[in-house]
Amino acid sequence: MATTDLIDETSTLLPSDDTALADLVFTGARTVSRFVDDTVPEDLLRAVHDTVRWGPTANNSTPLRLLVVRSREARERLAAHVAEFNRERVLAAPVTLVVAADTDFHLHLPTLAPHAPTAGDRLAGVPEVRERMARENAWLQTGYLVVGLRAAGLGVGPMTGIDADGVDAEFLTGTGWRTLSVLNVGWPDGEGTDRPRAPRLSWDEVAREV
Amino acid sequence: MATTDLIDETSTLLPSDDTALADLVFTGARTVSRFVDDTVPEDLLRAVHDTVRWGPTANNSTPLRLLVVRSREARERLAAHVAEFNRERVLAAPVTLVVAADTDFHLHLPTLAPHAPTAGDRLAGVPEVRERMARENAWLQTGYLVVGLRAAGLGVGPMTGIDADGVDAEFLTGTGWRTLSVLNVGWPDGEGTDRPRAPRLSWDEVAREV
Repeated sequence: MATTDLIDETSTLLPSDDTALADLVFTGARTVSRFVDDTVPEDLLRAVHDTVRWGPTANNSTPLRLLVVRSREARERLAAHVAEFNRERVLAAPVTLVVAADTDFHLHLPTLAPHAPTAGDRLAGVPEVRERMARENAWLQTGYLVVGLRAAGLGVGPMTGIDADGVDAEFLTGTGWRTLSVLNVGWPDGEGTDRPRAPRLSWDEVAREV
Repeated sequence: MATTDLIDETSTLLPSDDTALADLVFTGARTVSRFVDDTVPEDLLRAVHDTVRWGPTANNSTPLRLLVVRSREARERLAAHVAEFNRERVLAAPVTLVVAADTDFHLHLPTLAPHAPTAGDRLAGVPEVRERMARENAWLQTGYLVVGLRAAGLGVGPMTGIDADGVDAEFLTGTGWRTLSVLNVGWPDGEGTDRPRAPRLSWDEVAREV
C-alpha cells in the first residue's frame, strides 16, 4: 500500500490538515532494524522525554523508567538476554533503551498526585496492585515514547523477544524496576527495513457501537 | 507551571521546530472532564484509528478493540460499573470509548503477520500468553490512540477507576475482549479541567545509563 494512499485517508487527523507529522509518526513510519552510524545525543532523548512525560497516566503515576545502553560492554550484557534473532540488532543500534516499569512508583505520589494525598500510603501495602498499575501505565507511556522519538525524526525498533527476568537480574537487582521491552533507537538507514508493510485491521473490525 | 515554559523546553522535539503539535498532544494537553455539547462524528473516530493503527505492536498483533458508547441506555449500563466519582463523567461525555484487549487476536495473525506464518497456531494453545500479549500491546496502542485523538483536536478523559470484570460481563460475554480502560472523548470546554497541572519526574529521575 503506498504511503500516499494512507495520507489521503487520514487528511482529517490534524485540524491544520498538516499530514506531515501523521506520516512521520504513524502512516509512513516503520519498525527500524537498520540505522546509520550516528550517535543519538543524550540531550535529544532528554528533550523527547521532557515532552512525552506530560501524557496522561492513572493518578499521574508515570512509572516508565529507562536504562540507556550505549557502551560495548553494556550491549553485550543486554544481548545475552534477548532472543537470538534480536541479538545483532542490540549490538548494532546507536543507542538501546531498556523500558522498565517502576513498581515503587508510589513513593513519588506525594509529589506527582497532590490531589490524592493518601494514594501513596494506600498502595504501600499492596505490591501486586502496584505491579499491575506499574506495568499497565508504563506500557501506555511506551506508546507516548515511541511517538515522541519518531516525532523527533528518530527511528525505533521495539523488541519484546527478550528474557525480561534475565534483564532484570543483569541490571536491576535491588530496584523496583521491571523490564517490559527494549527499543533500539537511531536514525534509519533509508526506510530502515526490508520487510514489506503488513496490513492493519479496519475500524469496522476493531470497533462496535453498543 | 506555564505552558509557554514547557514549550520552550521542548522546542527540539520536531525537526521542523513546529511545537504546535507537541503542545496540542502533550505539553499543553490536560485530562478533560468537561466537554462542550457537540457530537463527535463516527468518521472522525475512524480517521483517528486509520492513522494510529499503524503504530508498532509485537508481531503486528494490534489487539486494541473499542466499544463506542453513545446512547443514554448504553451509558447507564456502563456507568453502573465505574467508580462513583467517575459516573457523572460517563453520563455526560459526548462519546465514551471502552478500550479492550482482544485475547483472540491470534486468529488475525495469518493476515497481520505474513512474515511469521506459524505464530497464530503457536499461540492457539497458550491462552495465558495470549492474554498477557493482548493486554500489554493494547495498553501500548492506547498510548497511540490518546495521541491521535488529541492530535485531531479532541479532549480525552481516560479512566481506570472502573470494575473491568463488571464491564466485561455487561457488554463482552462470549467474546475474547477484556476491558482495560474507559476514555471520555469530546471537545474540551475551555481547558476542560479545574485541577492545577501536576508535576512530572525529570529525565534524571527516570533514566540511567548502564
